[in-house]
This record gives sequence, C-alpha cells and structure tokens, in this order.
Amino acid sequence: MFFGIEAGGTKFNCAVGHGTEIVEELRVPTTSPAETLGTCKAFFERAADRHGQPEGLGIATFGPIDLESGTIGATPKRGWPGTNIVAPFKSFGCPIAIETDVTGAAIGEANHGAGVGVDPVVYLTVGTGIGGGAIVGGRPLRGDPHPEMGHILISRRIDDVFEGTCPHHDSCLEGLACGPAISQRWGKPSHALGDDLDAAIDLEADYLAQGIAAIVAVLAPRRIIVGGGVMEVPGLLEATRERLFQKLNRYPGAAAHTDPASFLVPPGLGGRAGMVGALVMAAGSS
Amino acid sequence: MFFGIEAGGTKFNCAVGHGTEIVEELRVPTTSPAETLGTCKAFFERAADRHGQPEGLGIATFGPIDLESGTIGATPKRGWPGTNIVAPFKSFGCPIAIETDVTGAAIGEANHGAGVGVDPVVYLTVGTGIGGGAIVGGRPLRGDPHPEMGHILISRRIDDVFEGTCPHHDSCLEGLACGPAISQRWGKPSHALGDDLDAAIDLEADYLAQGIAAIVAVLAPRRIIVGGGVMEVPGLLEATRERLFQKLNRYPGAAAHTDPASFLVPPGLGGRAGMVGALVMAAGSS
Repeated sequence: MFFGIEAGGTKFNCAVGHGTEIVEELRVPTTSPAETLGTCKAFFERAADRHGQPEGLGIATFGPIDLESGTIGATPKRGWPGTNIVAPFKSFGCPIAIETDVTGAAIGEANHGAGVGVDPVVYLTVGTGIGGGAIVGGRPLRGDPHPEMGHILISRRIDDVFEGTCPHHDSCLEGLACGPAISQRWGKPSHALGDDLDAAIDLEADYLAQGIAAIVAVLAPRRIIVGGGVMEVPGLLEATRERLFQKLNRYPGAAAHTDPASFLVPPGLGGRAGMVGALVMAAGSS
Repeated sequence: MFFGIEAGGTKFNCAVGHGTEIVEELRVPTTSPAETLGTCKAFFERAADRHGQPEGLGIATFGPIDLESGTIGATPKRGWPGTNIVAPFKSFGCPIAIETDVTGAAIGEANHGAGVGVDPVVYLTVGTGIGGGAIVGGRPLRGDPHPEMGHILISRRIDDVFEGTCPHHDSCLEGLACGPAISQRWGKPSHALGDDLDAAIDLEADYLAQGIAAIVAVLAPRRIIVGGGVMEVPGLLEATRERLFQKLNRYPGAAAHTDPASFLVPPGLGGRAGMVGALVMAAGSS
C-alpha cells in the first residue's frame, strides 16, 4: 500500500492506494503548516493502522520548492516559506518521493492518463496559477529548482489594457492568462463570461498558444496535456489548438502541426492526475 | 580511437581522436551530399589505415534531422532533404551516435568545457542561425524531433522595422537576432557595426534575453553557455546578462538571478564544442 499527497494552495488531497486504485482519501484545507500537515499525518497514521505501514509516500506539491530537501521557498502563502513538507512524514520509515504539483500530474498522466506511451510529454495546468511539468526520457524533468512554465514571457496584445497579476513580470503567461487574470480583466470568472465569452476565448487562446509555442521550441514534446479549471471554458481548447497551429506555421515540432487534435489534449485523469501521480511516485515507478 | 563529424551548413569538420585529444582533422566544404559525405568517408578510410578501425563514430549535425534514422528533414540546403547522413559510415562496422549540432556542442561543453558538473546545462549558438541543445539528468534532451530553441517566438521591439529572416515566423529569436538578421537590419555584419554598435547591442541583447528567459522558464537550467560568431561582439554577452536579469526580475530560476555572470557564459571549448562533442558521443560517454 502507498500513500500520496497532492499539496495545493487551497487543499491537500491525501490518498491511500496504488496507482488509480484509491482505497481511502481525505481533503484537508491548506491553513497553517502545523495544522494542515498535522491533519494529513493523523489521517495516514489511522490508515497505517487499518491497511499496514506504507511501502512509499509520494508528495506532489505547490512551489517553489527545493526538491532535494523538501523545503518550500518564497511562496506568498502565509507561514509556508521555509516549511519542510517531507519532515513530518519521515516517522513512517518509508521512501518519500517529492515533485512539483504539475510534475506529479505529468507523472499521473504519463502512467495512467493521456500521456501513456508518449515521450516527451508535458502537463500544463491553467487555473488559479499556470504551471507545467514534463516527463522526458521516462523521467520527470527537474532543474534549478524546477520548471516554471507559467512565467514564460509573452507578448501582451495591443488591445489588452489589463495590468496582469504577476508581481514579477509585466506580461508573463500566468500574469495575463490565469483564472484570476480572466476574472479581473472581464469582471467575472471564466465560467460566467456571458457576452464576453468569445472575446475572452480569443485573447486567452492567443496567450496560451504563445506559451505553448515556447514549450514546443524548447522541449519538442510529442504531446501537451492541458488541464485546470480555465480549460473547462467551452471552445477554449479548440481555439488554442488553432492559434498554436497558426503561430508555429508548420515549424518547429512534428506532432504539433501534423495532428493538432492529438497534440494538445485534455487530461485523461481529469482532476485526479496529481493524486494518481503522487501514488505512482510513492511506488517508485515514475 | 574514435571518429567524429561536426556537420554544418557550410562545412563538415571530421576528426580522429578521443575527447579533446584530436590526432587528425579535416574540414570539408558542404556541397552536394554525395561529394561532401564521400570526402568525409575517404578521409576516415585513410585514418583507419593509419590508426586502426574506429571504436565508434559520433555525428553532430545540422537539422532538422530524424535522430532515429539519421535522415535530414526539410532543410533549405539544396540536395540535402531526405539524405541519410549515417548510411555512408555503416561500413566501418562501429556504433554510430547522432545528435543535432547544438546538442553535440552541449555534450562537448558538458564533458570538457564550461558545463562540466552542471546539470541541466544548455548550449545556445548565435550565428548564421540560432539553436540550442541541452543536457538534462546527464542525457541529451531529445524530442519530436528535437528542440528548436531558435524558433522561440519573441516580441519585436516597437522601433524595429526589419522584417526578419525566418520563413515561418514574423518574430522568432532566429528571425530577428541571428547573424544574417543583424547584417540585413544594419546593412553591415556584426563584426563591423561601427556607429550602430551600441544600438545593435541594445536590441540584440533584448531579443536574446527574451529567448533565454523562455528557456529558463521551461527547463530551469543551472547554466546557459552561449557561443557562435555573433557573441563575439564586444559587450553583447554582458548586455544580455543584464537584460535577462531585468526581464526575469528575480523569478523564475535560481542560478539565473543569483549569479548572472556564472549563469550565462561563453563556451569553454570556443568553436570546438561540437567537434569534441561528436568524439564524446563516439565514445558513448555522453
């Protein structure tokens, strides 16, 4: 039996199981590190009583994070900078694997979702934030400290006067295209755009295609899986495919222009990619 | 003894040796595939008579290239599309390793140059074209078919009326910032900019920093080695570091903003990175 944690900014999802087989699950709100990590640990202790000690624990976490030590970096989430997210779970005595949340989702999709047998494969989430993880040569892509695909710099469209949400960049992908950017620009959230729907999709698809084009040029993935709440806007995925195809103009990347519909796809695991990825990481088969 | 070929658009460099120890070398102009590959093969046959049969051959080649088969793709170089660059050398009966020219240079630098002990590391060349290769987790980054970092889409500066040199993209890194783009924009080559030197450096550094920022966001490398003829313009590397630092604005990437001078560096092997990389590939130690 394996333990998995998908650690997000609003909730920690804890699961007990193996791959896509989840036998027990708990959603814990993200409050203070002591409270959140304490609740997760208590859940796993009870689970260990019922199901036996874990063979491994996988953590797919928000960042920035030092993946060597498990210490959270300079996040705006109060109380979390400097928190070691691995330490509380060392008492289980099992191997602990840690990756970013989006790398965890990429691992989940690569093993059990829309990325099975596809390499390199990228998982991009477009929601409260924008981030991407990749599997390259069968292994999660790491770096110094890890990819931050949400902060690809893009060109602001000339008619877009919204200032953006990123504290670092005037015009990066996350700052102009994340869920809160859409809400603030249009004065309503992405699931309730009303009369602005077409204009919002047009702009969002342009920004997403710019970011994805950079990923294509740098990584040359065979497939990009795009998840997150914003992608549930009807027509956005199709519009993004079309815009990407125009921007690349048949170069570079092979899959990107030979078959856009199988290049840019929704997650096979829906919202469970990160959770499944954490359990795959726990089993050491990522 | 190993054989290495650095296959470029204007010349093929053939070498016999091991790593940085080159015992014999020949520069062959790139003309027709039959003539160029034939001259290379004849050189290696003579070398085999003198030094014995090769233990391996490494080829670092221009692209686009199908790295599985060794077949050149849709290049504008006349006669080369569809050419198999590996086939003529199979008669030597040794293992043949093939990578793109820039990946070959990355391998050379990672093993014997400015990238020793640094991972992930990227090699970017800014010359007749712009391209990048990367070593990630000790292995060359491949893809579908391979990275094309020169075609990262960037923002054209509002005062830049030059149309660009890329047949695919209105404003990609290569199209706006390669050597021929500089020559055409300013009416003189990068080594003879005269009164336009400062303005040209200012613009070039901006474009290069945009492309490098995308590489930082997607790959999070610990170091980027920047080579190629254009980078010999005095002051350009320093200006690019400064501009990159401003654009990233301390996020993302760790090395990129903690120590710009050791993050963006010239090649340790000068113009020999690709050649050395081909010999390293030949020895199977890449």
